[in-house]
Amino acid sequence: MSKTIITIGREFGSGGRTIGKEVAARLGIECYDDKIIDEAAKISGFTTEFIQGIDEKARTSLLYNIVMSTAYGAPFRSNANGAMSLDAQVFFAQQEAILKLARKSCVIVGRCADYVLKDEQNLLRCFVYAPLKDRLNRAVGEYGIDKYNAQKIVQQEDKSRRNRYNTYTDRIWGARENYDLMINSSIFGILGTCELIVKAAEEKCGT
Amino acid sequence: MSKTIITIGREFGSGGRTIGKEVAARLGIECYDDKIIDEAAKISGFTTEFIQGIDEKARTSLLYNIVMSTAYGAPFRSNANGAMSLDAQVFFAQQEAILKLARKSCVIVGRCADYVLKDEQNLLRCFVYAPLKDRLNRAVGEYGIDKYNAQKIVQQEDKSRRNRYNTYTDRIWGARENYDLMINSSIFGILGTCELIVKAAEEKCGT
Repeated sequence: MSKTIITIGREFGSGGRTIGKEVAARLGIECYDDKIIDEAAKISGFTTEFIQGIDEKARTSLLYNIVMSTAYGAPFRSNANGAMSLDAQVFFAQQEAILKLARKSCVIVGRCADYVLKDEQNLLRCFVYAPLKDRLNRAVGEYGIDKYNAQKIVQQEDKSRRNRYNTYTDRIWGARENYDLMINSSIFGILGTCELIVKAAEEKCGT
Repeated sequence: MSKTIITIGREFGSGGRTIGKEVAARLGIECYDDKIIDEAAKISGFTTEFIQGIDEKARTSLLYNIVMSTAYGAPFRSNANGAMSLDAQVFFAQQEAILKLARKSCVIVGRCADYVLKDEQNLLRCFVYAPLKDRLNRAVGEYGIDKYNAQKIVQQEDKSRRNRYNTYTDRIWGARENYDLMINSSIFGILGTCELIVKAAEEKCGT
């Protein structure tokens, strides 16, 4: 198989992570998600727990995002004391980790990987989405999220993904021009979506 | 083959019409585009030329759209004299034509068909897009559009499609929630895009 990198952006609850693992298994390649945090920790000197904590804060705290934005302005800019935001430092460490892991064929779920790897030749950029009601069902039934808070949590997760993507790239999360293929996973199911991604990888990368 | 209806929304110059014809040929079913106008003419009593003229005006004249909108308000509303806009009458005639033609398996390109056929069970809703530069190349090289006006014309066509879709449906043209599958035709080429649509039809409709 020629080198194949597949990135999967996804709406929360659309099954993107499961799809990524299944696609990787079918192609006999690695799927990276949490391993990016481990690798970023090695690169940056931060602990895995610290990076996870930054991820968590960015995800759950609007106040945190506002403070970061106010203190540092654009994410890549240092503040008055020359310091780059911790969020930006973690983003750059994850970016280095992605570039390192993508030296070999792999699937990478989330983490702006389609943008980070934009110069990669054999790159298939996918985005997986689904209607809100189906994502709520998955969030409650599979991820164990309390059903009374599910809608708030699902929308907060999407907002966090959108904010981070839009902040660290010059692109808009989920906008079609950033992707090669966008799939409604409710229509095709997890396995059908995998079939389509594998087929697309064959078409684009000769997998 | 079980009944299969495939709708293809598309950015101008992305090759959507060619893709529609090729997909239909592979599945051994009809592809409807201009035939919808003929059928709408029969249904409405307007001539084919008149309907084409309305289509053309809507496409090329911003002033026409403003006048229609000012005179009639929402497209489905009659004006003070109880008359429905000609544009709306043509839309409804085309809608009836689509519903009639879609009694059998077929591919329908454009004309808000994904919305018109929203209650159809075996419906695969596709959207084909491509970067502007590639669409300009196709507009000049294949459609024979003057290269100095190509960008203006391509963007005007997209705007017209967007306006009509957004006006006559309660949806946003090109927004992912309206489609099952969205494909960047520059990445996969005409034939690769057809392969993916046929595969998706197999997955969804058991084609």
